[in-house]
Amino acid sequence: MTVIEEMRRTHPAAGTSDASDALARCIQACLECAQACTACADACLAEEMVAELRTCIRRNADCADVCDTTARVLTRLTGENAATLRAVLEACRVACAQCAEECEQHADMHEHCRVCAEACRRCEQACADALAAL
Amino acid sequence: MTVIEEMRRTHPAAGTSDASDALARCIQACLECAQACTACADACLAEEMVAELRTCIRRNADCADVCDTTARVLTRLTGENAATLRAVLEACRVACAQCAEECEQHADMHEHCRVCAEACRRCEQACADALAAL
Amino acid sequence: MTVIEEMRRTHPAAGTSDASDALARCIQACLECAQACTACADACLAEEMVAELRTCIRRNADCADVCDTTARVLTRLTGENAATLRAVLEACRVACAQCAEECEQHADMHEHCRVCAEACRRCEQACADALAAL
Amino acid sequence: MTVIEEMRRTHPAAGTSDASDALARCIQACLECAQACTACADACLAEEMVAELRTCIRRNADCADVCDTTARVLTRLTGENAATLRAVLEACRVACAQCAEECEQHADMHEHCRVCAEACRRCEQACADALAAL
Repeated sequence: MTVIEEMRRTHPAAGTSDASDALARCIQACLECAQACTACADACLAEEMVAELRTCIRRNADCADVCDTTARVLTRLTGENAATLRAVLEACRVACAQCAEECEQHADMHEHCRVCAEACRRCEQACADALAAL
Repeated sequence: MTVIEEMRRTHPAAGTSDASDALARCIQACLECAQACTACADACLAEEMVAELRTCIRRNADCADVCDTTARVLTRLTGENAATLRAVLEACRVACAQCAEECEQHADMHEHCRVCAEACRRCEQACADALAAL
Repeated sequence: MTVIEEMRRTHPAAGTSDASDALARCIQACLECAQACTACADACLAEEMVAELRTCIRRNADCADVCDTTARVLTRLTGENAATLRAVLEACRVACAQCAEECEQHADMHEHCRVCAEACRRCEQACADALAAL
Repeated sequence: MTVIEEMRRTHPAAGTSDASDALARCIQACLECAQACTACADACLAEEMVAELRTCIRRNADCADVCDTTARVLTRLTGENAATLRAVLEACRVACAQCAEECEQHADMHEHCRVCAEACRRCEQACADALAAL
């Protein structure tokens, strides 16, 4: 069991939501995607052709910020904030799709863009699954 | 001139967007709202009646995270990420509205909720203005 | 291989540091600890005895913020910022120790505090190991 | 009165600390510095000579993350976490000094680096003042 799952299982509100599995997977996908995007922005910055990777670095940085926030909002189960949760998941789905689209264009040349694009696509799907499960 | 405005004026991409004033005001509103929400969550936690303020603390925490991310995404002018910017502004507008609605219910009893609700309403409006200006 | 390790392996600066394994493990520990602390703060807030868990919620919130930032600083390999990296790792070690100390006092009564304390202690050790490896 | 000061004045724990003014000023300095650093990283990325600004972008990104976290930790007054607060302020002082030092080297050529360096030096001083006041 991951720490994410252990924390959900031991929460006083545990088990009150059918969507819990999809949300736990989405938290994991967001954390992985945020870290991959921060790493990809930094790797792009180190490339000789950095001047051609500006949009990639931009989308990486935005996606990392959005994913970090989404993981936090998804983690909270106390109180009620459903409208915000939905809007944040939708923003995260968009940020991941936009970042993946850009990284995929550099995936053949830069392996870090390939790995990052895959993390973004997984997170995009995890957000869509979480929205469907809510 | 604020530091936010100075940084925009000295950016290589300065002046390329008609929306720049609305976006600069929105950054300021997001930073103020994020800080007010972190402070309000902490002040609610210190109240004797903390058990009745759970939803307020939850919405404060979510709103602080969303506003921090929105300020960062709005600050970036390099590259292109318009779809993400719009989705993040929309999520921020919702998070601020939800937090304001809850804080307003405690505004008579807790002055920190009154001040925070006002910051949330200003930020909600600033996000709407930024979306209209894009 | 984790995504963290894949991103490091594919970075243009990969392999230039002997400390790389310790730093990769520390990133993973920071991400797990940050998420556990956000979850524990939220779980404490849902407890009937929330009024007795104020310091726990406080330390959880601070530790989550510090761990998130530490994971980001550790992820970056481009350019030079060694003095900052050391100071951030030291702050993270302290934040994790303080949070663990508090969570451990509630570990018998609240399983989320037990799981969170363990994540904090692992991250405290990972920070110490990273500092030693630098 | 700023929103930061209003939120402190209306907090249940208001007035319990002689250091309150220095801490409020430090929160403001951290928020300004974090935003300036995110903007400077983005402005450097847009410069033709981006390849010579890698360390500047790196230190900007690290400094923005550390300042954001420091503002949050400083904002919280409930519970007790003094050792963490001190370690975070020390890390922020270092991150600001390192970023200012780098930005100052480009201040003649890039006005955004000049404005950012000034924000970093103000924040470095505000952290030192806060540490002295604690």
